[in-house]
Amino acid sequence: MQFFYTPDTCALASLICLIEAEAPFELCRIDFASEQQKSEAYLRINPKARVPALKVGSEVLTETPAILAYIAQAFPEAALAPSDALAFAQVQAFNSYLCSTLHVAHAHRMRGYRWADDHSAIEAMKAKVPQSVAACYTYIEQAVFEGPFVFGDAFTIADPYLFTIAQWMESDGVDPAGFPKLAAHRDRLRQRPSVVRALQEETT
Amino acid sequence: MQFFYTPDTCALASLICLIEAEAPFELCRIDFASEQQKSEAYLRINPKARVPALKVGSEVLTETPAILAYIAQAFPEAALAPSDALAFAQVQAFNSYLCSTLHVAHAHRMRGYRWADDHSAIEAMKAKVPQSVAACYTYIEQAVFEGPFVFGDAFTIADPYLFTIAQWMESDGVDPAGFPKLAAHRDRLRQRPSVVRALQEETT
Repeated sequence: MQFFYTPDTCALASLICLIEAEAPFELCRIDFASEQQKSEAYLRINPKARVPALKVGSEVLTETPAILAYIAQAFPEAALAPSDALAFAQVQAFNSYLCSTLHVAHAHRMRGYRWADDHSAIEAMKAKVPQSVAACYTYIEQAVFEGPFVFGDAFTIADPYLFTIAQWMESDGVDPAGFPKLAAHRDRLRQRPSVVRALQEETT
Repeated sequence: MQFFYTPDTCALASLICLIEAEAPFELCRIDFASEQQKSEAYLRINPKARVPALKVGSEVLTETPAILAYIAQAFPEAALAPSDALAFAQVQAFNSYLCSTLHVAHAHRMRGYRWADDHSAIEAMKAKVPQSVAACYTYIEQAVFEGPFVFGDAFTIADPYLFTIAQWMESDGVDPAGFPKLAAHRDRLRQRPSVVRALQEETT
């Protein structure tokens, strides 16, 4: 397997899970600064010009929730997701919420150009990010998070994904002190060997 | 099971799949016009105040990609998704793209208030919808769609989800004539008995 990623993006979640699963993979860094994601070579791998992408044999898998679910199912001995269909679906529901609501709210801070051309509109989007992102964390803190991990005692593919996005709390203008369970989760994950190693890979 | 839905929303995708799976369920309409989704009774079911929601025993499952995957896994005889982990993940990747990119682009037409407070910013978002939504359909038409169904000969949970969103093409300012494979898919799905029945349920 080849894993295409860029530091400080949501690709970190999949990188952590690949390490958790002890999956054999080659790490391929895509340099956003030189717009490598728009190079012909990378567009052949992922025509969406985004990371992450996981090449498995001749196939390329994209979209964080799908990559995470694949790692969990392909490496069952790592026990990264429940096998029961309903419990598995609840993990998928959480990850789907992260990608379609929380990550989208966050993205309005620096990728507003996706949804409007007007400079003042893009500034108006930035201004609302602290509120729209905090609303997502309120929902997770109050209605979902069980502790010590998202789904209770077991570490699942939901945890590195939440951790990855929660690293952006401060830059999104959200005070972690308002979310004590999530702040403690973030601290806990930062100590986890797979996370330590993934963050080291990102910075070397 | 109880299925909570509102007509003309993405809940249609799950409704079609429940019918395809011949799942036993009670259909519970949530009236957006009277803001029933914000009622105390519904917030106990889904604190996100959105549809769809699928109540299975004492648990409530939300988020379309998770509900679709659950239906496929809970009713395997309906063969709504491949059982191979990588092929299943590809279906999930497609559905994840629909929810986090295409549906999000579409939502900027009438739910811009989620991402900005300023009236002119909300108008600027509306103005870009034809372009941002068309870019998603271009990717699907050119890079993903196999035909006659999204993933070739087999109808999967990807098809009713694409159909549901593609129904909004014209109102999103996108000309279906520019996407002949997707337009033909939409016409094909409209004839399918499960879709006919789901659309009838929606309007009665």
